[in-house]
Amino acid sequence: MAHIILNHTLVQAEKATVSIHDRGFRYGDGAFETIAIYDGVPYRFEWHMKRLAGSLEAIRINYDIISLWEECRNLLAANRVTHGLLRIQITRGSGGRGYLPEPAEPTCVIETMLLSEIPTQPVALYGSSYAKIPAISLPAEKLCQGLNSTLARMEAADYGCFDALMLGDKGYIAETSSANIFWLKDDILYTPALGCGAMAGSIRSAIIALSPYPVEEVQANITALANANAVFLTNVAWKALAVNQLKPAGLQWESTDAAMRFKTLLEQAMRQESLENQNDWRKEAAA
Amino acid sequence: MAHIILNHTLVQAEKATVSIHDRGFRYGDGAFETIAIYDGVPYRFEWHMKRLAGSLEAIRINYDIISLWEECRNLLAANRVTHGLLRIQITRGSGGRGYLPEPAEPTCVIETMLLSEIPTQPVALYGSSYAKIPAISLPAEKLCQGLNSTLARMEAADYGCFDALMLGDKGYIAETSSANIFWLKDDILYTPALGCGAMAGSIRSAIIALSPYPVEEVQANITALANANAVFLTNVAWKALAVNQLKPAGLQWESTDAAMRFKTLLEQAMRQESLENQNDWRKEAAA
Repeated sequence: MAHIILNHTLVQAEKATVSIHDRGFRYGDGAFETIAIYDGVPYRFEWHMKRLAGSLEAIRINYDIISLWEECRNLLAANRVTHGLLRIQITRGSGGRGYLPEPAEPTCVIETMLLSEIPTQPVALYGSSYAKIPAISLPAEKLCQGLNSTLARMEAADYGCFDALMLGDKGYIAETSSANIFWLKDDILYTPALGCGAMAGSIRSAIIALSPYPVEEVQANITALANANAVFLTNVAWKALAVNQLKPAGLQWESTDAAMRFKTLLEQAMRQESLENQNDWRKEAAA
Repeated sequence: MAHIILNHTLVQAEKATVSIHDRGFRYGDGAFETIAIYDGVPYRFEWHMKRLAGSLEAIRINYDIISLWEECRNLLAANRVTHGLLRIQITRGSGGRGYLPEPAEPTCVIETMLLSEIPTQPVALYGSSYAKIPAISLPAEKLCQGLNSTLARMEAADYGCFDALMLGDKGYIAETSSANIFWLKDDILYTPALGCGAMAGSIRSAIIALSPYPVEEVQANITALANANAVFLTNVAWKALAVNQLKPAGLQWESTDAAMRFKTLLEQAMRQESLENQNDWRKEAAA
């Protein structure tokens, strides 16, 4: 039986519930992180904690994240997770007069998840009719405001596509509904600059650091993809996933080799970090 | 003990919970309605059902709302509500691979709420640094995506203001974090057009229908407010609430008489509709 940690307490996942008054349920009033687990060790845990702290500050939820490291370690041990995902969500808790919150105890849920089946063949993208939410409306953090991404991905599925390519409010390529996007062109690796509406993804930043090619973070529109040599997507679940076409624009790429190369680099980095941190993360389980 | 109805079952409000896997909690993946209850009767119930159906269609949640009327009636009887609010929230339920949902049973929560204390004096607005989320990013429906409104209202509170005046993506006045806005100028009543980012509020449409002045739905920027004779806010909780100033722009108005006049018109309409529908809504309680 899989467990989760709800407000510092280990409980069975199936029985874990929150109040209907929780502002997470009512308004999506919270933030979350999803972290890759490689050989029992969360990849770039401190990086994720720093991003989470930034998200919570941006939406003004006061939560001491110091206990998360130990709680995550306990949960990994309880669920005996080797490879998968770790998800941490913190909401503002219950209460308030409409949108105006009252001081409340935040709600914290920590889960482990199995990796869903990842496509073994290159995937198609659909050019979404939904734009990313602009920074003037919401902080560019990882927030529990997922309807924009949900609707974009449902639309992509309507057209037989795996994911949706989304533009930012200024019309530049931002990211997909669920991943960052990279493209190779003449031995330079490109990805949208964060100001274009791209999420500051952990795998995005890892790929930038690991790339054997020079990397440029750019403001680019769809025409930049037309001449790309390869296109791939990155997130904690898919790692580096080859893209073979963009509908309905009719763009096509042969991305398998490039995506595989970056996926291999990434897995090497994950394995190395895992080896270096095994002792820290497995101490509790052995105790 | 107040009750709620959770997925067709009457339960105690304090014990009502939803799964941590509910997409409402994870992503704010749902829509809701808040309805004024006047003398035991929900005001403009059919209007709200039509708007809810539109919201659910826009975000592609399949839910048969036909049972809501009877469930709401049962809840009003159980909680013996005379004046207050009725809130209906429907989320996409649990499940899915990240943002992409799997077919699931939606979650429906019906609650009654007491009216919070409404200011008896005119209130101040703060010119928000947050813009409304544009229609290209999210359908202009009443969605469980409340962080934009929450952050705007928290910011307004920082400056000692009751609510936040927000602009749409094109820079026109849209609404406040929690209400529609109207202003009177030379015996014409103005309110932002829906395309400017204003929610299609039930009290907004009632005020337009009841107004003794001609009404114009306009694209207007802040300068339009500078010369207004009176400004007031409308929603199901506040009815018509006078605004006396906008910070930090330094605009001021004497809005008490105008707001009171519209509030009186509104209460007359609510009383009349309540009298006409008492038999329908009280049948169940008497049975």
